[in-house]
Amino acid sequence: MADPEIQDPIAELITNYNELNSSVIEELDEEPSALEFMRFVARNTPFVVRGAAADWQATRTWTVDYLKDVLGDEPVNVAVTPRGNADAPTPYTSPDGTTTTLVFAKPHEEDQPFSAFLSHLTSTPQKEVRYAQTQNDNLRHGEYHPLFHHVPPTIPWARLALGQEQPDAVNLWIGNARSVTALHKDNYENVYVQVAGHKHFVLLPPAGGAAAVVNEQPLSAARYVRTHTLEGEEEGLEGGLELVLDDGEEGKGEVVPFAIWDPNRPAENATRYSALAQPMRVTLDPGDMLYLPCMWYHKVSQSCSPEGVCIAVNYWYDMDFAGPLYPLSTFVRSVVNKET
Amino acid sequence: MADPEIQDPIAELITNYNELNSSVIEELDEEPSALEFMRFVARNTPFVVRGAAADWQATRTWTVDYLKDVLGDEPVNVAVTPRGNADAPTPYTSPDGTTTTLVFAKPHEEDQPFSAFLSHLTSTPQKEVRYAQTQNDNLRHGEYHPLFHHVPPTIPWARLALGQEQPDAVNLWIGNARSVTALHKDNYENVYVQVAGHKHFVLLPPAGGAAAVVNEQPLSAARYVRTHTLEGEEEGLEGGLELVLDDGEEGKGEVVPFAIWDPNRPAENATRYSALAQPMRVTLDPGDMLYLPCMWYHKVSQSCSPEGVCIAVNYWYDMDFAGPLYPLSTFVRSVVNKET
Ligand SMILES: O=C(O)CCC(=O)C(=O)O
Ligand SMILES: O=C(O)CCC(=O)C(=O)O
Repeated sequence: MADPEIQDPIAELITNYNELNSSVIEELDEEPSALEFMRFVARNTPFVVRGAAADWQATRTWTVDYLKDVLGDEPVNVAVTPRGNADAPTPYTSPDGTTTTLVFAKPHEEDQPFSAFLSHLTSTPQKEVRYAQTQNDNLRHGEYHPLFHHVPPTIPWARLALGQEQPDAVNLWIGNARSVTALHKDNYENVYVQVAGHKHFVLLPPAGGAAAVVNEQPLSAARYVRTHTLEGEEEGLEGGLELVLDDGEEGKGEVVPFAIWDPNRPAENATRYSALAQPMRVTLDPGDMLYLPCMWYHKVSQSCSPEGVCIAVNYWYDMDFAGPLYPLSTFVRSVVNKET
Repeated sequence: MADPEIQDPIAELITNYNELNSSVIEELDEEPSALEFMRFVARNTPFVVRGAAADWQATRTWTVDYLKDVLGDEPVNVAVTPRGNADAPTPYTSPDGTTTTLVFAKPHEEDQPFSAFLSHLTSTPQKEVRYAQTQNDNLRHGEYHPLFHHVPPTIPWARLALGQEQPDAVNLWIGNARSVTALHKDNYENVYVQVAGHKHFVLLPPAGGAAAVVNEQPLSAARYVRTHTLEGEEEGLEGGLELVLDDGEEGKGEVVPFAIWDPNRPAENATRYSALAQPMRVTLDPGDMLYLPCMWYHKVSQSCSPEGVCIAVNYWYDMDFAGPLYPLSTFVRSVVNKET
């Protein structure tokens, strides 16, 4: 039946959700039980537990010097960008200078000796921005494995609640205040733990119609490449970084659907629904633990510790694709993409 | 972005959901723990536990004679209809005989001595259909209260998981094979327990786009009224039942949005999406327990016990409106109602 009272189902969805849910994050006094956690999973609602990881060996001992001692000159994968914009929508000017479009900029990736990477992170001035952000289980099974026993191998209440003996990945993030992770979502239940420095999260709920708010657009993929090699690197001689469009398959160019709205610059790149969004904001301090439910959009920026670094560890658990959230979020996105 | 590949988000939703979820109900070997139950709540997925209530005093002792002994001639509210169609879409012919439309038929309701009600249920022939179906906490706080201590006051794993000291309602249902409960949904988590006879459930998931399948239409409300009184009732003299349109507020006529598709007659009153649905079917035998998640559409028909009755008890727990399901289901319904 055509119902004249429903003017705009998308606006109604955002408004309904916001009426039923707070945009202020819940703070728990202590870590939840598995059952309490499962209630948050069912409600797809974030929470933070202040100081839950304050006693972890990582939180107590990971100073810059200590990390250098443990990992020495082992090579680590580093994402390099001119402005901290790894995996972010970025203006790209064509080689002939005639057109500028927004592309999806992937970082230049290179292996660097860990000590040199940390020294660069904490030095001034920095001609480029470096971020150790490989999200490939790097702490448990990758290059940072020697540090893995400084954190719990899994989060007990998440293991029990989700019925997963192991997380899908345990990742270490090492960067500084110059890196920002652009607004995106992951198909994981995420337990995010701050070790040093501070992370500033801005969060948008999938069930609150985030897909209509974030202005997802098909962006051409591009990647930063070094114009000079790193050989003979000295301060100020890292070599320039040039943004180059991906060839993609058969030279057609790869396209990445990606959100171009930034909740911290709400007037730019907005959809007609962006103003209805009520982003949830939370800053993690060392020892704080965040449950970031699956499919929530998140933008993450950082502040440094007194030593000039920002370090975090996160646990990714598989989400349940059989529940209501995945098919219904896909539906919202399809309605949005069809109508706008 | 207008995405030409998305032809029909509603069809895509139904198909996605069906690919990710089985239409065969899960059977648990024993009652779940609170945590296991919470996983089903999170996934909004039904399950059945065969024989879980086999040892309940209700299941063991509620024969027709025993119930008559306990309740005697106490008055009970009975829904009376000509064809077992209480609260069901029903053809209505205008008094002048010129037009026939589908209306929402509410039953005639009257108090009857419990023993007489049960005798009628189990007698032949029956000129009308009677069903004790007041969903008003009748077993815990209403007319059947003397029987309440024959069932557990709450379902422990539901109480713990949902964090609700008490169910919202505990209802007793007494009818026979002639009554059918038309396809509808409730905003409750429902634990449904079969005591005598059999119930045949047909279920449709809200996250699977049920709103697009069930063909909800705005029906005028009507109610059966007795054309003669019950005074001097004898077999065959109950008095006729006439369907009369409701006046509604200010005489405008009350309108009830109600599903008119019947999963057991799928070709009639279908939407263009009904054929995509994969209804889940489950029959409860005495002692079986069903978790019917909130917002699932359900049609329920009955088969009698050897004594000619069908008896069930259900526990309604408040659903969580803050989760993804409520706003997203409302969204599906709005999109459907806007587009069709
Ligand atoms: O810490 C960051 O920079 C981003 C974290 C993130 O995106 C995640 O944990 O999924
Ligand atoms: O048993 C019936 O007839 C209907 C049950 C029902 O609709 C419910 O439990 O919500």
